[in-house]
Amino acid sequence: MSQTPQQHDAIEVIRAKRDRQELSDSQIDWVVDAYTRGDVADEQMSALAMAILLNGMNRHEISRWTQAMIASGERMDFSSLSRPTSDKHSTGGVGDKITLPLAPLVAACGVAVPQLSGRGLGHTGGTLDKLEAIPGWRADLTNEQMMAILEDPGAVICAAGSGLAPADKKLYALRDVTGTIEAIPLIASSIMSKKIAEGTGSLVLDVKVGSGAFMKDVDQARELAETMVALGTDAGLKTVALLTNMQTPLGLTAGNALEVRESVEVLAGGGPEDVVELTLTLAREMLAAAGRTDVDPADALRDGRAMDVWRRMITAQGGDPDAALPVAAHQHVVRAQADGVLTSLDAYAVGVAAWRLGAGRARKEDPVQAGAGVELHAKPGAVVRGGDPLLTLHTDTPDRFARAEEALDGAWFIAPEGSRPDLLPLVIDRVDG
Amino acid sequence: MSQTPQQHDAIEVIRAKRDRQELSDSQIDWVVDAYTRGDVADEQMSALAMAILLNGMNRHEISRWTQAMIASGERMDFSSLSRPTSDKHSTGGVGDKITLPLAPLVAACGVAVPQLSGRGLGHTGGTLDKLEAIPGWRADLTNEQMMAILEDPGAVICAAGSGLAPADKKLYALRDVTGTIEAIPLIASSIMSKKIAEGTGSLVLDVKVGSGAFMKDVDQARELAETMVALGTDAGLKTVALLTNMQTPLGLTAGNALEVRESVEVLAGGGPEDVVELTLTLAREMLAAAGRTDVDPADALRDGRAMDVWRRMITAQGGDPDAALPVAAHQHVVRAQADGVLTSLDAYAVGVAAWRLGAGRARKEDPVQAGAGVELHAKPGAVVRGGDPLLTLHTDTPDRFARAEEALDGAWFIAPEGSRPDLLPLVIDRVDG
Repeated sequence: MSQTPQQHDAIEVIRAKRDRQELSDSQIDWVVDAYTRGDVADEQMSALAMAILLNGMNRHEISRWTQAMIASGERMDFSSLSRPTSDKHSTGGVGDKITLPLAPLVAACGVAVPQLSGRGLGHTGGTLDKLEAIPGWRADLTNEQMMAILEDPGAVICAAGSGLAPADKKLYALRDVTGTIEAIPLIASSIMSKKIAEGTGSLVLDVKVGSGAFMKDVDQARELAETMVALGTDAGLKTVALLTNMQTPLGLTAGNALEVRESVEVLAGGGPEDVVELTLTLAREMLAAAGRTDVDPADALRDGRAMDVWRRMITAQGGDPDAALPVAAHQHVVRAQADGVLTSLDAYAVGVAAWRLGAGRARKEDPVQAGAGVELHAKPGAVVRGGDPLLTLHTDTPDRFARAEEALDGAWFIAPEGSRPDLLPLVIDRVDG
Repeated sequence: MSQTPQQHDAIEVIRAKRDRQELSDSQIDWVVDAYTRGDVADEQMSALAMAILLNGMNRHEISRWTQAMIASGERMDFSSLSRPTSDKHSTGGVGDKITLPLAPLVAACGVAVPQLSGRGLGHTGGTLDKLEAIPGWRADLTNEQMMAILEDPGAVICAAGSGLAPADKKLYALRDVTGTIEAIPLIASSIMSKKIAEGTGSLVLDVKVGSGAFMKDVDQARELAETMVALGTDAGLKTVALLTNMQTPLGLTAGNALEVRESVEVLAGGGPEDVVELTLTLAREMLAAAGRTDVDPADALRDGRAMDVWRRMITAQGGDPDAALPVAAHQHVVRAQADGVLTSLDAYAVGVAAWRLGAGRARKEDPVQAGAGVELHAKPGAVVRGGDPLLTLHTDTPDRFARAEEALDGAWFIAPEGSRPDLLPLVIDRVDG
């Protein structure tokens, strides 16, 4: 109808996707831009999001959609740094503190890590919430401060500025209230638009699979991983994804200060086996993606270089790496009800319990308790005796114990001795461009 | 989660339909009520509407949805009338003036006709717009005035009050801007909620099929007809549907005063064959649905009783049945380009041309021209000579002729003499409870 070919209207774009047509480049560019400007209404975008969720988008459409979201804001540029950059993104899990030891470890091996992170909502914790348990540490940096810390000590974990992909910010808030979060094209473009706009030189994706993850089954997770790797590749960004196990929590802690403590143990050369293994695996992927196949991150853990970067990184952001971490005022021990083998311990249940104890927030504006969370005394595969402590619950507000215990009802299984848990491996699959 | 089983939240209801689950009665009651009250946001309802469009609703869900929309407003009651009532609803077509002769004809045969109508939007005209071409006639009546006219002369065509199914009014406006009009469950429940709330004793649905109709193919139209008949039956309302042809305009006129003139010709015993046939067919259905199989409406057309009711009905609403009808200030004749048989004349093209000439409106607040429209001089099947007038275009604003002629480009076909048009019958099918 219109004389200008770039002009569209919202109903035309909605109808096209509703009727299973491929959206044109100009329809995608128009609708993302017009939505960001407010010319496409929320009720129109939510109808389009539902049509995308149910009818899908092909690789070209998702790639164009991602580019349009990037174009809605500013792009960062790390090319002036003296070192290559690599970033990691996790789709979120329970006890997933890997960023904390990983970023300084990779930096210690010669690759800069610009880790722009978020806060937690719901049953998975946020990296910034965890670091804020360290007295004095602050998440907000100017671009100049961020660049200086990236140059030396080489790793920065900070809040993403609001200038990156503002279309995504607006769209994510809409999807959150309209039942349209679970659309793989929209999840993939949301994550990748921010990572591409951030300007990292390479990217490793940790796509979690299992009860504690957003993706409950391997096929869905693989589809998301393949979609994101394709988007990165299309944008000229070296991208690799691992599918990793989130049936049971990572490590032995879920909660802010609890996870910092465990991360420091890993940096000191100790820590739970699964956390160490996943940290090293992801570090090797990030180093390889940045072209550094000549270094072994295990050496940097062992000889204290990673710990040194950690201490300098925390100090650079106002934190005191030697300060005592907050401890919750109240503890409650949950014990094994029988002798046998712990064959399962459900990640989602532990995540919800930690959340209810005060480690997470229900709404964006809620505060979190630094000391709250769940400590695990056994992981699947362990032999336990009736009466042994299984979990310790931590909170400053003891009236929360009851609801946390409700969440844990049926969350684990103790099988007769000699049984073996049926567990997925820690790293389930790898998707490469 | 909540203690009260009737409480739901919008995301839960959206997710259920998104994931192809049947919505529960209490989910449907809650979401329709909460949307009407403003507790469910537009962007949530549009996501749900898109999920309903793409994933459907079963008969029970549609029936419950319809009841919930009825419950959002008031219900009328005609049981105090001395006669049975019957109403007709058309899904809308080009040149569809049937309500005008039909309502007085059925009333003349002893069945009261409460015809609550709307105004036109887009390429199909509105019954109220047509009657407003009659000097003095007014659409807005109080409930008391409506009841008095229904008692005598027995037929009333007036604006539906805003108290009937307000949920539908709000939802329809939302669907209109979010690409979610074309959902059969929502179309069916929209129409039927108003007709059931109106309180008619029986209902005949005229579901149009073809280029000039909302439903372009017979299967879709049959699905809509069956859905609406089921909804009426579930609500205890005797309901019948006819699928009728809308490939070509009904009668020889499309436009407000032009259609009134043609309707009066039918009431005077003349008029185009297809308009007379459809009027009598629908009248027989309405009379039968109201239990009056003992009367033949053809008699009431022939002996002037229908015309008498018409004149009294127009007078009762302030109109002058003897006043001259408005005539457009400008006419333009479109002629046949060759000798042969007119095998098609596209209803949609004629509807758009009439609309552009001023007979219809693009936005609710636009005025319409009483005299504007398209007059047909030949219908498919007619033998024409090159240079013969095919159409006369009428408007008060002659700068509109060019865009009307654009709409008519390729709208008809003249085949060699001896050819026969491949036309659907006027009444294609009948759906009964």
